[in-house]
Order: sequence, then structure tokens, then C-alpha cells
Amino acid sequence: MNGAEALVRTLVDADVTTCFANPGTSEMHFVSALDRVPGMRCVLGLAETVVTGCADGYGRMMGRPAATLLHCGPGLANGLANLHNAKRAYTPVVNIVGDHATYHVTYDTPLTSDVESLARPMSQWVRLSRHARDVADDAAQAVQAARSTPGGVATLILPADTAWTDSDGPRKPLAVSPRPRPGSQHVDQAARALRADGPAMILLGTSGLTEAAQLAAWRVARATGAALRTTTFVARMPRGRGRPPIDRLPYAVDQALELLAPVRTLILAGAPAPAAFFAYPDKPSRLYADGTSVIPLAGVEEDAEAALIALAETLRAPRQVDFDLPAPETGMPSGPYTPAAFGQVLARLLPQDCIVMEDAVTSGRGLFTPTFQAAAHDWLQNTGGAIGGGIPTATGAAVACPDRPVVCLQADGAGMYSLQGLWTQARERLNVVTVVFANRAYAILQGELRAVGAAPGPASDVLFTLNAPPLDWVHLARGMGVPAERADTMEGLAGALSKALHAQGPYLIELLC
Amino acid sequence: MNGAEALVRTLVDADVTTCFANPGTSEMHFVSALDRVPGMRCVLGLAETVVTGCADGYGRMMGRPAATLLHCGPGLANGLANLHNAKRAYTPVVNIVGDHATYHVTYDTPLTSDVESLARPMSQWVRLSRHARDVADDAAQAVQAARSTPGGVATLILPADTAWTDSDGPRKPLAVSPRPRPGSQHVDQAARALRADGPAMILLGTSGLTEAAQLAAWRVARATGAALRTTTFVARMPRGRGRPPIDRLPYAVDQALELLAPVRTLILAGAPAPAAFFAYPDKPSRLYADGTSVIPLAGVEEDAEAALIALAETLRAPRQVDFDLPAPETGMPSGPYTPAAFGQVLARLLPQDCIVMEDAVTSGRGLFTPTFQAAAHDWLQNTGGAIGGGIPTATGAAVACPDRPVVCLQADGAGMYSLQGLWTQARERLNVVTVVFANRAYAILQGELRAVGAAPGPASDVLFTLNAPPLDWVHLARGMGVPAERADTMEGLAGALSKALHAQGPYLIELLC
Repeated sequence: MNGAEALVRTLVDADVTTCFANPGTSEMHFVSALDRVPGMRCVLGLAETVVTGCADGYGRMMGRPAATLLHCGPGLANGLANLHNAKRAYTPVVNIVGDHATYHVTYDTPLTSDVESLARPMSQWVRLSRHARDVADDAAQAVQAARSTPGGVATLILPADTAWTDSDGPRKPLAVSPRPRPGSQHVDQAARALRADGPAMILLGTSGLTEAAQLAAWRVARATGAALRTTTFVARMPRGRGRPPIDRLPYAVDQALELLAPVRTLILAGAPAPAAFFAYPDKPSRLYADGTSVIPLAGVEEDAEAALIALAETLRAPRQVDFDLPAPETGMPSGPYTPAAFGQVLARLLPQDCIVMEDAVTSGRGLFTPTFQAAAHDWLQNTGGAIGGGIPTATGAAVACPDRPVVCLQADGAGMYSLQGLWTQARERLNVVTVVFANRAYAILQGELRAVGAAPGPASDVLFTLNAPPLDWVHLARGMGVPAERADTMEGLAGALSKALHAQGPYLIELLC
Repeated sequence: MNGAEALVRTLVDADVTTCFANPGTSEMHFVSALDRVPGMRCVLGLAETVVTGCADGYGRMMGRPAATLLHCGPGLANGLANLHNAKRAYTPVVNIVGDHATYHVTYDTPLTSDVESLARPMSQWVRLSRHARDVADDAAQAVQAARSTPGGVATLILPADTAWTDSDGPRKPLAVSPRPRPGSQHVDQAARALRADGPAMILLGTSGLTEAAQLAAWRVARATGAALRTTTFVARMPRGRGRPPIDRLPYAVDQALELLAPVRTLILAGAPAPAAFFAYPDKPSRLYADGTSVIPLAGVEEDAEAALIALAETLRAPRQVDFDLPAPETGMPSGPYTPAAFGQVLARLLPQDCIVMEDAVTSGRGLFTPTFQAAAHDWLQNTGGAIGGGIPTATGAAVACPDRPVVCLQADGAGMYSLQGLWTQARERLNVVTVVFANRAYAILQGELRAVGAAPGPASDVLFTLNAPPLDWVHLARGMGVPAERADTMEGLAGALSKALHAQGPYLIELLC
């Protein structure tokens, strides 16, 4: 059995059963091994950023990794942005990169590059296999690294000769360590602070975003008056009717500073201490006030759910809670696009148990509040700020959950970085409805220019507008086999969305904003 | 004057007058400085691989660098594949990457990454500026590094606070060192070997591909009977009527081995010693036979043109040469696509002084010979094997040479990695005609699978075919504002190509293969 077959058998034995791939010559033996070993589904992406974004979406929904298959340094490079997002989401991914045969590197042929240097910044774990007999061990360790708390990107670099040379066969899966429970002293410290005077806030992230964690946090908040927020971007959050209506920390620095200014006790439950996404001249990077007491109830690698439940019990917080939501708006909005009207359409039409991938950038900022009353759903976001996560992550989530509708809320500028993912949706007949917010601008950058204190001018006009020529997403989608239509009113959007959600296969709606 | 303005003034003073950009928040002050400093043209790419590929095409045609403007580690990562191609082409590029403010990195916010680790493998030179007062010096050195022989990618990483903090103003351009002339002993050694018995071959690359270098090499070959070849991929080669008909080294290992087997003297003129693009089981990486005498007439960083002229003079090779081409085929081919018929169409229709960017992969292999008799043109190829160079490099070449028609010969699979470049062509109204070879497969991988000794199967069928659903390039192009049509015969192609070459602005022809 050659190294390639030992690799694939090791992966399948470890429950890695989907491979998102864009291979090249140096991966030919891996492709061939996929044909000999049953149990691995192969999904092709036409650009590597699609491959890695799919693996991110899949891993977020499954809680276990997919494999990737990428080609040499440049192929890895093309996939790094969405690996960055996966790393920041702590998504388990086994990222396999083929490279030149070990003995071939010395010839410095055109595709030669330092793959390890490229991989390290976007991986929690990196290994270069040097012999075919190491591949199975290294693969078992890669799966272990990807799945071990807090999870992440394990990159395994496989020179071509490790694939075609004889190996010692596959390896059994290695034990995966569970999330450690944080020490009880942090629970006690948090309970004491919450009982004392002064405004408090609990910030939820990573494992503090599970449904059980949110419920425990809600109980604590109800019992103590503490405010509740999630991190600005969430990897995966169960939300909607029957779940606590928890808003997120604002992206805009001034809004975040204002919100956090009165907070005297800040309890971190799987979230890092809040900091501005970017630095701005004359604004602080740290978002909480001097003198705020920051209590690390649970770190990102710890079991925040268990810590929040322990905190609720320590505080004897009542187990029965309700959510006091205002009655949902009746009637479907009409007329031109507004963010509020869009939220209302979404709240009414999101199907039960759907998955929302939100990469809507400026158009997505106000969508948390109106969707508190949508049917129960999972909400996924871009966690690493690397543009282009939307379409691929939605695609991977649909591969993971074929029975759940996926709604991808996609900014037009961001969508252009990885539009090739639409073809994979058509190829795999995935139930993804993509709504493109066609404001025909990098609207976020128009705002950021003002935020850094600069004035618009000819260069910013060239660089931040997408209106000349306008992108035609209906043509783009059809070019990749995805049926599509354009909506320029809220009633048009509602009709198209409703129809698309009831049809099989992918669909795209270009919403003129 | 802040660091951003000092940067832009330094660049413009050094004749860096075009900036291909896809900026983000951390680059806002650079964008603002572009508005204050006259003389820099800004061109937007909707994905970073377009930005860097444009810079490659521009630099190849101008012989001086464009600047890029990229956003943080993930933005750089998205552009690395075409930087890899630029590095391998020795194209001068000043690759500017904005990053978080120096003091912000400690907060490890979502977009934080190790930008230097990402940049190093695909750059000849990397510098991280730490203070606003360093930016102008570092920029002047970056231009110098990009332009100094043999040229290449100089990456300058600029934390946001170096842009908005006060600087000491711009710096004057630094001296650029010319290509060193190789020592006369190599010329004498080559002359002796060529006068002796035994078959010889001269291999041309980098500066051995100029028109003067080719002519000198042709004189030498005529005088001595030596064979002449170029490297398998050329960064830029003047070709066509009135220029020597020099073929390239075959990509396929068996063909290259057969060609090189009888060669006893191999003279390298700006080319590396020939090695297989990839390793294959049971095939050598080195392509020339044991006992071949390899003479380094000029290294890739040396002046191969001067060395070849010196060699021709040393050998007293006649200055008058002719090229003995067969009479060109008359009549335009008709019927379905064949590679030979395509070559014939190209030979007849390529306009005088046009630029051809060939990224046609399998469909491009046979195009050198038939185009010996095309009107004089420059031929550009993918030099680093990083897929997706075609459309962006053609786009950048058209920005550099607005008066020269550009023909982009684009494989469909490879074209999907960077199709976003079509939008830039429409935006800038560039005269680029793209011919997409729609064979709806990764045909090269179907061949490579056989080459490594593996058999096709379900996985390779999933991973190497693009026919379900078929990509519709006419819709894709129209979606980005580029008019397009489909051709399924050679006469249809000829009609469309002829029309497109006479019209203003970009055009795309999807050729069913």
C-alpha cells in the first residue's frame, strides 16, 4: 500500500469522510487512492479559496473536519484567506497540500516554494511528511490536532514521493482531548462580581455560543441584571424563536466604546477581551474603560458552556426564563430596499432549522435584532475578516447538512472574491439561496475612509465603487449553472426568496440596494 | 507630510506611476495620499490575484514596476499565486501590503497574521517599515530591489500608523544596477565547445530572449549547427515574422528527454539547467544525459544578450541570416476546433505588434510553431506554474501598452481562478480579446494522471471534469461588462476574432473545443 492509500484509509478511519479538492500533478496519487478507498466524498472547487471556505463551513456544522487537497505553494496560497477565517473560527480542518517530490526540490523548478512558511500563519498545526511511512502517523496526528480543543487548521504537507512510495499502512485514530473545564475560582470570582454593585457585561464567544451556554448566560443576566453580548463576529450561533435574543458587540469603535464605557465588570465566556477590529488614529484599540474588572470565566480553548452553567447554578439563577420579545411585525414590507425592511423579510421567511451564512458586511450590520423572532436557525459569520468567506462557507455548510436550507447573505464586493463557489453549488445540487446585496460599492471602505479622518477623492472613487460597469450577478450565476433573478423591491425580494427556498438546488437573488 | 504621502511621492519620483489595488481599512491613508499626489494611476482589481497578475503583466511590458496595494495577510495571500509567477518571471513589482498599526498587533484581532512569513516565499525582497520616517527610505529601496538585476518582487509591509504619522518627506530614487556581463571565459568556453565535434544546444531564457539575443543565438546556431530552444515557459519573447523561429523545450518529460538525449554540449544563455516541471515515478528530474557538458554562458541574473553577441562575434558568425520558413498556409481553416487549425487562425489574424498572453495549458502546447509566421508580436506565458495568470497578466499588459492589441489565450479551468480580471478590462476599456478554450475539463490533469501511472476512476472524473454543469463564459463575461460570444467552428472563431480585434475595448470568445 502506497503512502497515498495509507493516508486516505487513515482519514476515513478517523471519520474524515469529505474531501474538498483542487488538485494538481503532485496530488495525482492521492486522487487515485480516493478511487481505491471507499468512504470519501470528493467535492471540487474551481478556486482554492472555495475549497478552504467549504472546509470551514463543513467543519463548523459537523464539529469534525473535512480534508482539503491543494496543489503546491501557490495552490495553498490561494486558499489561505479562508483558512485564516477557519483558524479564527477554530474550525477543525485537515488541510492537505501536495508538493514536489522530496528529491525534486533541489532543481528549483517553477512551482517550487517554501510551503511551510506559507502555511504557518494560517494554521494551528503544520507538518511536512518526509517519508511514505510517516504519512499515516502524520495524518492521524493532523486529525487529532484539528479536533483537539479549541480546534483548528492542521496543515499536512505531502511531497509527491510520499504518496507513491510504499508505506506501512494506515494508523488508527488518536484520542481527542475534550475542552478543559475552567477552574472553579473563576466561577466564584464571576459570581462575587455579579453580586456586587456596578454594571456588568457577559461576553460570549466560541463554546459560550452553544444553545445551552446562551441559556445559562441568559439566566445569569436575568438574575443579576448583567448585560449580554456576543463577540462582533460568531463562528456559529443557534438563534431565533425559543432562544435568547442576544445582540452582538458593535463593529464600529465609537458605538462599542459607548456601550462598554459604563461596564465595571466584564466577564469573558469563550471570548477574547474586546478590542477594535482595526486601529484608528486617536481612538483606543482596547474597547473597555480603565478600571473595568475583566474576569476570564472561560478562555477560548476552555469549556465556556460548562462554566456558564456552573455560574448560573452558583448564583441560584431561576431555571425558567422567558425572552419578552415584542410581537413580530405583521405584513410583508414593500418598496425599495432598506436594512430594516430586509430584516423584516428575513424574520418572516427564514425556514425552520435553516443555516444563515452572513457575509453582508455593511448590509449585514443590523440583522441580528430583527431576526430574534425568525424561526430557529444557525447563524454563521466571517470570523477572520478575510474577504470572500460567504459563498464558500455556505457551500460547505450545505454539503454538511443536505437536509437544512442554507441562506447566504452576501455583500457584492466581498462576493466577487470567491464567486466560483456558485459552480460547486450547482455541481452538487446544494440547497443554497444566495442573496447578493448589490450596492455596487465597497461601502464599508467609504465609511472607513471617513473613520480614519480622510476625505473622499478621485482615487477613493476609483477604488471603492463597483458601478462602472455594474456587476450583473444574474449573468454571473447563470454562467456557473445557478438560476438567478434580480429584485429591486422588498416585495420582489420576498417573492423570489420564498420561491427559491421551496425549490431544490441553488438559487441566487441579486437585490439592488 | 505623513508617511503615506511620503511613500506615494517617493514612488512617483522613481517612475512608479501605476498602482493596481484592492485596499482595505489599514490602507485608507494611502488611498487618501493618492488623491493628494499627482501622477499615480489607480486601477482596481476585484480580487487580489487580479491585482498582482496585472502588476506582473505591466512590469513585463514596461521593464519597470507598478505598485500594488493589498490589505493585510489574507489580502496578500490572495495575491501570492500571481506574485509567484512574477517572481519566476523576474518581473519588477513593488508589492505594498498594509497591515495593522504597530501597537494594535498585540490585541491579536481577527485580521492579525504573520505577513512577513507569507510574503517571503514569493518575494525577492521583504521589508516591514516600523516608523513613518522609515517609509520613504524603505520605498526607495523597494523600487531599487525590484528593478535591480534580475528584477523581481519587492514586498513592503506598511503598518497603518506608518501611513498616518508624520514623516521626513519623500526620498530620491536610488541607483539601479545593470545586469552584469558574464566573464569572457564562459564565452571562450562555449565557442571552443561549439567548434568541437558533437551535437550542441543553446537554451535561451530571461535576457537571452530579447530580439537582439535571439538574433545572435540564431547566428551562432547557423554557423555551428547547434540546436536552439527557449525555456519551456517564457516571461516575454518577441516573435513572429522577421524574427528567428525558435521553438521551446517540451513540457512533457519523455519528449524533453528524447530531444536532449543526443546533446553533448548544452549552453545556458539566461536559462537554468533543464529539469522536469514535476517529478514522476521512475523518470529523472534532470532532463539532460549523463556526460553532457553544461556551459553557463550567462546566468539568469547576467546579461545573456551581451554574452550571445560576444559568442557570435568570437565565432565570426555571419551577420546576415535568413529564417527559411515554409510559405504560410493560405485560406482560413474551417470545421471543428483542432489545435493545428487554431494555430493557423492565429498565424493569420494576430495583428502587427500585438501582445499574446498564453495561459492555454494543454490547448497552448502546439502554438509556437504555427505562429513563427504571424505578424511580429510579443508572447507572454505563465512562468511559475501558478494557475490563474492569464486574464490578469493580459490585463496588466494592456494597461501598460494601450496602443497594442492584447490577445489572451486562456484555458477554461485555469481561467476560472481569476475571471474577476475581466471586470477590470471593462472598467478600464482595455483592448484585450480573450479566447477561452472550453474543453470543460482539467485536461492537463487527465494527462498527468496517466503520466504518473494511475488509472482514471470516479474521483478523477469528479475532480478533472468541468462539464456538469458546463461553465458558460459568455454569461460570465457579460456579468462583468465584457461583451462575448461563443464559437464552435474555426470559421466562427476567425470571424469573431477578426471583429473583436478591430473593435475598441475588451471582448471574449468562448471556443468550444
